[in-house]
Amino acid sequence: MKDFVYHNPTEVRFGRGVVASLGARVRAAGLSAVVVVAGGGAARRCGAFGDAVTSLEAAGVAWTPCEGVRPNPDLDGVLRAVQALRDAGAGGFVAVGGGSVMDTAKAAGVCALHDGDPWDHFTRRTTATAAVPVFTVPTLSGTGAEMNGTAVITNMAQQRKWSLRGPTPVAAFLDPVYQRDVPLALAVGCAVDAMTHVLEFAVAGTPCVDAKALDIPGGTYFMEETVLAQNEALLRSIIRSVEVLRRIPGDYAARASLAWAAGLGLCGLTGVGLGGGSWVSHALEHAVSGHFPQVPHGPALAVLFPCWMEEVASEHTPMFERLARNVWGVEGAVEGIRAMRATFDRWGAPRRLAAWGVGEDAIPGLVRAALEYPRPLGLAPERVERIFRSAL
Amino acid sequence: MKDFVYHNPTEVRFGRGVVASLGARVRAAGLSAVVVVAGGGAARRCGAFGDAVTSLEAAGVAWTPCEGVRPNPDLDGVLRAVQALRDAGAGGFVAVGGGSVMDTAKAAGVCALHDGDPWDHFTRRTTATAAVPVFTVPTLSGTGAEMNGTAVITNMAQQRKWSLRGPTPVAAFLDPVYQRDVPLALAVGCAVDAMTHVLEFAVAGTPCVDAKALDIPGGTYFMEETVLAQNEALLRSIIRSVEVLRRIPGDYAARASLAWAAGLGLCGLTGVGLGGGSWVSHALEHAVSGHFPQVPHGPALAVLFPCWMEEVASEHTPMFERLARNVWGVEGAVEGIRAMRATFDRWGAPRRLAAWGVGEDAIPGLVRAALEYPRPLGLAPERVERIFRSAL
Repeated sequence: MKDFVYHNPTEVRFGRGVVASLGARVRAAGLSAVVVVAGGGAARRCGAFGDAVTSLEAAGVAWTPCEGVRPNPDLDGVLRAVQALRDAGAGGFVAVGGGSVMDTAKAAGVCALHDGDPWDHFTRRTTATAAVPVFTVPTLSGTGAEMNGTAVITNMAQQRKWSLRGPTPVAAFLDPVYQRDVPLALAVGCAVDAMTHVLEFAVAGTPCVDAKALDIPGGTYFMEETVLAQNEALLRSIIRSVEVLRRIPGDYAARASLAWAAGLGLCGLTGVGLGGGSWVSHALEHAVSGHFPQVPHGPALAVLFPCWMEEVASEHTPMFERLARNVWGVEGAVEGIRAMRATFDRWGAPRRLAAWGVGEDAIPGLVRAALEYPRPLGLAPERVERIFRSAL
Repeated sequence: MKDFVYHNPTEVRFGRGVVASLGARVRAAGLSAVVVVAGGGAARRCGAFGDAVTSLEAAGVAWTPCEGVRPNPDLDGVLRAVQALRDAGAGGFVAVGGGSVMDTAKAAGVCALHDGDPWDHFTRRTTATAAVPVFTVPTLSGTGAEMNGTAVITNMAQQRKWSLRGPTPVAAFLDPVYQRDVPLALAVGCAVDAMTHVLEFAVAGTPCVDAKALDIPGGTYFMEETVLAQNEALLRSIIRSVEVLRRIPGDYAARASLAWAAGLGLCGLTGVGLGGGSWVSHALEHAVSGHFPQVPHGPALAVLFPCWMEEVASEHTPMFERLARNVWGVEGAVEGIRAMRATFDRWGAPRRLAAWGVGEDAIPGLVRAALEYPRPLGLAPERVERIFRSAL
């Protein structure tokens, strides 16, 4: 287990009707006016937006809407939210929506307190310590944005989809009922996103004790045994929960378990002791959707993650074998990747980037974008190219 | 998944040498003087005490020792710590030791800010919101006290071992190296304690989807699928880590995984969605060590937990079957309890309360004490008696 610091002070209120307590919680944080950030209408349709503003009003908190955040959110949207905050004289953000909305609010929370070029926060690799308070009301579960301090934003002018790190939200109000009618394809994309967060960390596991030689059942013992066991459990629960939803789309328990697993998946816990994890597949995906904003993050990861695993399998054999056994119930690294693909196929996830019109001609630009990602990939350009090619 | 609030703002610094940053962290919290709480000398012998005060001094934080906290800590020790704080004009506590030391500091942290009878905090079932800040440097991993807000304290005059709930520690400095030389018997007691924390919650799981009928592998799907999967993973990791330590006592990875699992085991995460869990076995154990302070908490739970499971197995069959399969690798609730006992036996844990001189004559007093526990057991007196008898 590598040394680590874990600190996630976000308060999570989880369950049916929890948004009713939003207004009082915002008040308790000392705020009397907020900007409510939302997307294209889904948050209104599922009832979350209405519940949130009703609760704010009941607590006497003034609110101003800032709607229209789009998927793969861009820096302009962040600046628009900052402006809305200043215009309204508001003291914080309430984000009602999916990861794009929550990331926009979190990025705006940091940018609102700093002068200078807002993109600086994305180019430096440090964590911003100051931000205006953000409260989240997730209506999709996948990104884990509701309870972490990261915000992934696209700079359209530069075609760069990079991330900023700042404080975690003050509180998250997670009511799975809002997700009851999320279509399966969207839920699958979110689930894959959550799985890849857990996997980006897990793949960095390090074998350390030959358990078989010591007559300890369960395979090789790893340096980060507890963290890996937890991560594998999250992955299994996500898989089982998606399988339940495929058969019973409105099942509350499955929506709830997925929601909680997605939150845990990127709240910090899944990465402790793993030295930051890999995050190569995410860098590759950010290159893709940074260039092609129509590409949805989760489904693109369903394509890219197995391609990355195939490219690097020989360098990660013990860990990939462990994942094969403990997550997919098969023996062998290659069999594990195959089982992962088969599962994503069964769920109806796309198999190739061509599904979104990404073709051969895009490859040089994607390779360049991936290689200039702030966190180095540790892969030679020809290997990055090979991964993209195998994903086309 | 039942509705829940999860909020654990404790900052965890984990790894080799992390205590070197204690002083600066205490300073950053605005403190210039603290009371350092410790036990009977183990914290000095393993180096933690020296490292802690060296770091405090380097940061210019004045410190006063309050040593001699004993296992199954009592209210007098808490009041002594409060007095030490007042005498020194200190602003917080640094607890260097095991659960007894950390619980004493946390209880003192709450009592120091309130007038009136300090035992009131233990009789009411509410959470104290104010306390002087506490920093923890655990030298044993089992109780999870380093990163939760609970403190279990014995009122010797009343022979009551009850708990108080208050704020979580500001920060925990967890260096597994301090535990390198913890004897196996003590490490096993701690591991069993951690396991029972996870189990007290897990046993409250509720089956909800007949996965087999839906052709979903892995057994019945539960309301709290994600939480249970996580809890089972913790249990498996603890078991595997103890097995490694039995063969390689100084193994850093196993000490580290045990330490992290114990912290996670009672930090709040293992209980979300489970409506508070069972905690009957802990109530039974608190009755025992409330009357017999020589009885160590963890080993006594190794005796009592399986006895409780046997008594209630027919009311918890699906969940006990799930634990049997996912934790112990066997089929059937009774087989699972048997495998649990066999594991504790193999680890050298005591099998009966008689190991500590608890006999037949103690039973009426223990039953009475268990039944007046603040959290109701939901068991008829004759069943409580039967459990104690089977544990003698």
